[in-house]
Amino acid sequence: MKLLSYRLNDKIYFGPKVKKEEAVWDVLSIQETLQVLPDFPTTIVEGIGLGMDFVEQIRKLVEAALKDENVNTFKRQFTEIEWLSPIPRTPKNIMAVGKNYADHAKEMGGVAQDFVVFTKSPTSIAADEQTLSIHADKTDAYDYEGELAIVIGKKGKDIPSKLAFDYVFGYTIANDLTARDLQTKHQQYFLGKSLEGSCPMGPYIVTKDELPHPQELTVVTKVNDEIRQNGQTSDMVFSVEQIIAEISKSVILEPGDVILTGTPAGVGKGFNPPKFIKSGDIVKVSIEGIGTLVNKFE
Amino acid sequence: MKLLSYRLNDKIYFGPKVKKEEAVWDVLSIQETLQVLPDFPTTIVEGIGLGMDFVEQIRKLVEAALKDENVNTFKRQFTEIEWLSPIPRTPKNIMAVGKNYADHAKEMGGVAQDFVVFTKSPTSIAADEQTLSIHADKTDAYDYEGELAIVIGKKGKDIPSKLAFDYVFGYTIANDLTARDLQTKHQQYFLGKSLEGSCPMGPYIVTKDELPHPQELTVVTKVNDEIRQNGQTSDMVFSVEQIIAEISKSVILEPGDVILTGTPAGVGKGFNPPKFIKSGDIVKVSIEGIGTLVNKFE
Repeated sequence: MKLLSYRLNDKIYFGPKVKKEEAVWDVLSIQETLQVLPDFPTTIVEGIGLGMDFVEQIRKLVEAALKDENVNTFKRQFTEIEWLSPIPRTPKNIMAVGKNYADHAKEMGGVAQDFVVFTKSPTSIAADEQTLSIHADKTDAYDYEGELAIVIGKKGKDIPSKLAFDYVFGYTIANDLTARDLQTKHQQYFLGKSLEGSCPMGPYIVTKDELPHPQELTVVTKVNDEIRQNGQTSDMVFSVEQIIAEISKSVILEPGDVILTGTPAGVGKGFNPPKFIKSGDIVKVSIEGIGTLVNKFE
Repeated sequence: MKLLSYRLNDKIYFGPKVKKEEAVWDVLSIQETLQVLPDFPTTIVEGIGLGMDFVEQIRKLVEAALKDENVNTFKRQFTEIEWLSPIPRTPKNIMAVGKNYADHAKEMGGVAQDFVVFTKSPTSIAADEQTLSIHADKTDAYDYEGELAIVIGKKGKDIPSKLAFDYVFGYTIANDLTARDLQTKHQQYFLGKSLEGSCPMGPYIVTKDELPHPQELTVVTKVNDEIRQNGQTSDMVFSVEQIIAEISKSVILEPGDVILTGTPAGVGKGFNPPKFIKSGDIVKVSIEGIGTLVNKFE
């Protein structure tokens, strides 16, 4: 199932994409009108906490809508909604693994060493298709990093890697935008990784049942249609399972948490001279099975 | 005003300390019973977002209770409540300034350089008087760091240092517990700073009107009544105002955010041999005007 979040008349909604249509099911309205279920979450994070039961509930709502004579009143066309990040607000900072592809670690001047995790403020979350600032007043070195993002579906700590997939709800795409000069200056990455709009995610969360092999995906980042990054998730130093196991040794994971799994080689800093993002650039991050995250920069 | 949060019958409450009594006003119950105000927040973070109006509202509720014949029914004795961190859950990770006292930077083997900020997971928040784990299965080097904590009261970015106090709601005490071995191993501090219970805070938030000179406070940390840290906030490299200005260049600050301002010299790692926390130790962090944060370790 492909889930998205959107805004309409100042309210935040979530729902699954309508198959073969450029529209989303307004599941809250289906439930309100047809009373299909005894109870249904009002926010996507609350729903994600129900794990695959949430997906099952949504399926039931869509089935009921399809049988209803007013079926079309439950669809919202993509043209009429404002897209949001599929998780508009994470319950804690976005967590991100540093230097998790050996080739990228090399271009950044350091070998992949021990497991490195930094965070990005949830106020940096942005949406697919959103126009973002390059923060020219704050940085001369704003850089892209296309990444596979894990969406956590279940609370846990000390999770054995063999059980890690039980704690996954699904996956999305993220661009871990980074002010390289601030990242270096402040030593700890948090400030250089937390500028407003520096964590666009989307367009969808693809639930894990539809993406059973997260270690066999291609991650492609294009800037103005020039391919910059073309990586394979099979090249990760720490796999999705290991990332969840390692982080959960220190941090209690919660539903709605997002973990960025690291970026492959080809970031702007890796070029000589560097190719940082300029005003007018369009950056696209594509991962097979999920889609393409597109942002224009000003 | 001294504000605290507590649990009673599985529900979370907040309120001001009753003057000269070891008790807290149950302001939600006052409002529910006496309907003093047209509207009143149900969570402390929501209230903090109202800034000093929140303090004014609480004052009105306490005044109404004091005039009521059933005044004592609105008080909860400290012996009957479970203390929580005054902010039980921050809206994003706790932010913390590294090496913000020159003497501490020296004992850690590095000079205070550029402004360094890392984060701690909100799942690490713990309460005053709570018994905490030393995580002996995960670290051999669990260390204390007594710190003044800023509680943010207003949303803002790019805040000029001259206006910074407008964005402060109040202050509390924190112990920025750190697994030194994990901090070093993982390079970025997040994992070594986020173990469960590694961010006890409290006992109170003291609102800023009662603590007008945050740069003139003494911070004392004792382990089993042996003084280990005895610092002056006047020795901070970056002042409270500068910290808010600097962080808000990168991060949108929000009501309920907590910023730890760094620790003075005297952490366990600074001794030769190091004096890390052992099972049975009692660590007390005292800041004049706020109180003492006490935790036993097992």
